[in-house]
Amino acid sequence: MVRSGKPTIADVASLAGVSVSAVSKVVNGKSGISSSTRERVLAAAAKLRWTPSATAVALRAAKTRAVGMVLRRETNLLSTDPHFTLLIDGIERELAPRGYGLLLHIVGEEQLAEETAYRRLAEEGRVDGVLLTESRVGDTRFALLRDLGLPAVLVGTPWEDDPIPAVRAPHSDCGIHQAVEHLLRYGHRRIGYISGPEDRVHTHHRIRAVEEVLEEHGLGTAPSVTSGDFSPDGAVDAVREMLAHLRPTAILFANDSMAVAGLSTARRLGVEVPRDLSIIGHDDLPMSELVYPRLTTVRQDLVGLGRAAARVLLAALGEVDDGHVQVNPPELVIRESTGPAR
Amino acid sequence: MVRSGKPTIADVASLAGVSVSAVSKVVNGKSGISSSTRERVLAAAAKLRWTPSATAVALRAAKTRAVGMVLRRETNLLSTDPHFTLLIDGIERELAPRGYGLLLHIVGEEQLAEETAYRRLAEEGRVDGVLLTESRVGDTRFALLRDLGLPAVLVGTPWEDDPIPAVRAPHSDCGIHQAVEHLLRYGHRRIGYISGPEDRVHTHHRIRAVEEVLEEHGLGTAPSVTSGDFSPDGAVDAVREMLAHLRPTAILFANDSMAVAGLSTARRLGVEVPRDLSIIGHDDLPMSELVYPRLTTVRQDLVGLGRAAARVLLAALGEVDDGHVQVNPPELVIRESTGPAR
Repeated sequence: MVRSGKPTIADVASLAGVSVSAVSKVVNGKSGISSSTRERVLAAAAKLRWTPSATAVALRAAKTRAVGMVLRRETNLLSTDPHFTLLIDGIERELAPRGYGLLLHIVGEEQLAEETAYRRLAEEGRVDGVLLTESRVGDTRFALLRDLGLPAVLVGTPWEDDPIPAVRAPHSDCGIHQAVEHLLRYGHRRIGYISGPEDRVHTHHRIRAVEEVLEEHGLGTAPSVTSGDFSPDGAVDAVREMLAHLRPTAILFANDSMAVAGLSTARRLGVEVPRDLSIIGHDDLPMSELVYPRLTTVRQDLVGLGRAAARVLLAALGEVDDGHVQVNPPELVIRESTGPAR
Repeated sequence: MVRSGKPTIADVASLAGVSVSAVSKVVNGKSGISSSTRERVLAAAAKLRWTPSATAVALRAAKTRAVGMVLRRETNLLSTDPHFTLLIDGIERELAPRGYGLLLHIVGEEQLAEETAYRRLAEEGRVDGVLLTESRVGDTRFALLRDLGLPAVLVGTPWEDDPIPAVRAPHSDCGIHQAVEHLLRYGHRRIGYISGPEDRVHTHHRIRAVEEVLEEHGLGTAPSVTSGDFSPDGAVDAVREMLAHLRPTAILFANDSMAVAGLSTARRLGVEVPRDLSIIGHDDLPMSELVYPRLTTVRQDLVGLGRAAARVLLAALGEVDDGHVQVNPPELVIRESTGPAR
């Protein structure tokens, strides 16, 4: 007799009109089952969205036509950090033509809330797979998703070489290298860097990339690094502080929102950009081209990364044959906010 | 015997171990059904996600814990128009604490694709309801969603007073009224308006609001309206054209991205803002405060609108008792891009 709650193997057997052991044989690929029985079992399982963990992927594939994305941030994330909207742009370019939707959960900064969200998505069979971003130091999500049997693809560099499928741009340090070389060619020597939060894996990679170039050029002094929080308000304070003490002739920022805030802060203090101060952003968000002077910035192919991650996932789900999308390497886009050191 | 394909009433009867007519009686609220039979039928229907159209809402409520949003735009919408990210911000503030996700479909500019997406969401029982935005002239979505039995809430003003539940800001013309009054007080008489696309219901409301104020002040000449497409590139051309011919001392824009592009265009042409030209945006996106000079703009409570729409929907789904969220009326935020007419 059917009971309320999650579908069980007994429900599948009942709906298919076969024994529980027959269902078990089908889902475990055992022999001795007629093709008509197999079809009835799979149809019943699909209708009930019942998914034994071992065969979860196979049964669930192309069932929900939804891909999940759980973001551990404040709910105002998308409006304050357009980085994510570009990733989602790329993801939608692969999902939309195939009739897939993106199920977005913004769960706040608590790690537990994020884990609960993944568990629920997996247990309720609400998505065919998930996309992850913002690889963190000591990330626990990858192991959790393996436990849950939920296909997952990461945008970025996994913590400690975790084997999760990951997409990243080729030559990922090249953009920063180009940016620092560009400043050095212009004669800059006092260079500040306003970084991202320290718990992000890429923050450490990028600081290291800046230092590498300076060391290559025999500039023993590391750049003056100030930890940013990706917020424009934080950048305003960091720029004021840096201009008062380090007195840099150039500042690199870990994202464009901070760079645009820095640009306005400088001009408000009577510091002309680029005459007195060169500024370089990171990401090449649409606003970089809207502001005056236009922002020199390290372009990240965020749309390409979103597409690539979605495509790898769609291939894992059997939806596309070719899981490859070209991601462009980061590159410096030189506009108007950089010039010769004064 | 179970067949592949969508669940049928026969599947529900089979799984519940009752007759088809018993299922029919339960879902139609007829008498003569024991409570245990009723429970078995509802459990079986829920497990199969089988939803007769008449009782779709009742059965589906709190089942998927997902709300759909289908956007008929290019997939780069979210990155180019932060307006939507603010709405989604507000929506997530209501959904996230209740464990609901937002299922996002960006379907391209074709009307048919949008309809297909709604049909699929309804037929597959993938969401509990949908949120709509961008009310259009001659909108067909509201009738379609009623046909599909899918609860829907619109952000904005429905076309021709359609009875769809809608949320909008109180005193929705006040922000524009304040903006034009502000310019008139500063002595501006040649005022340009770069509007949104003509197929949007709000475009006509807003042009009318500008004209009303000018008429009240006995300024018979309507503002010079140029149709924008909400894109910064379009705004650059419109501003160049307007400065060359109308020679306005002030320009209002239908969104902030266009206003920021207009601000940079003016400065690039040697037109100082606000000394030679006052500029007013619309929405008060985060970028308004980042640019220099800071943008005077009509603040829309987009986060409040997103919250209000989500909340009305959650109330319709029985998830919250109180479906009301306060939405602030639009208001002019005076910053640095407006000043006395030269």
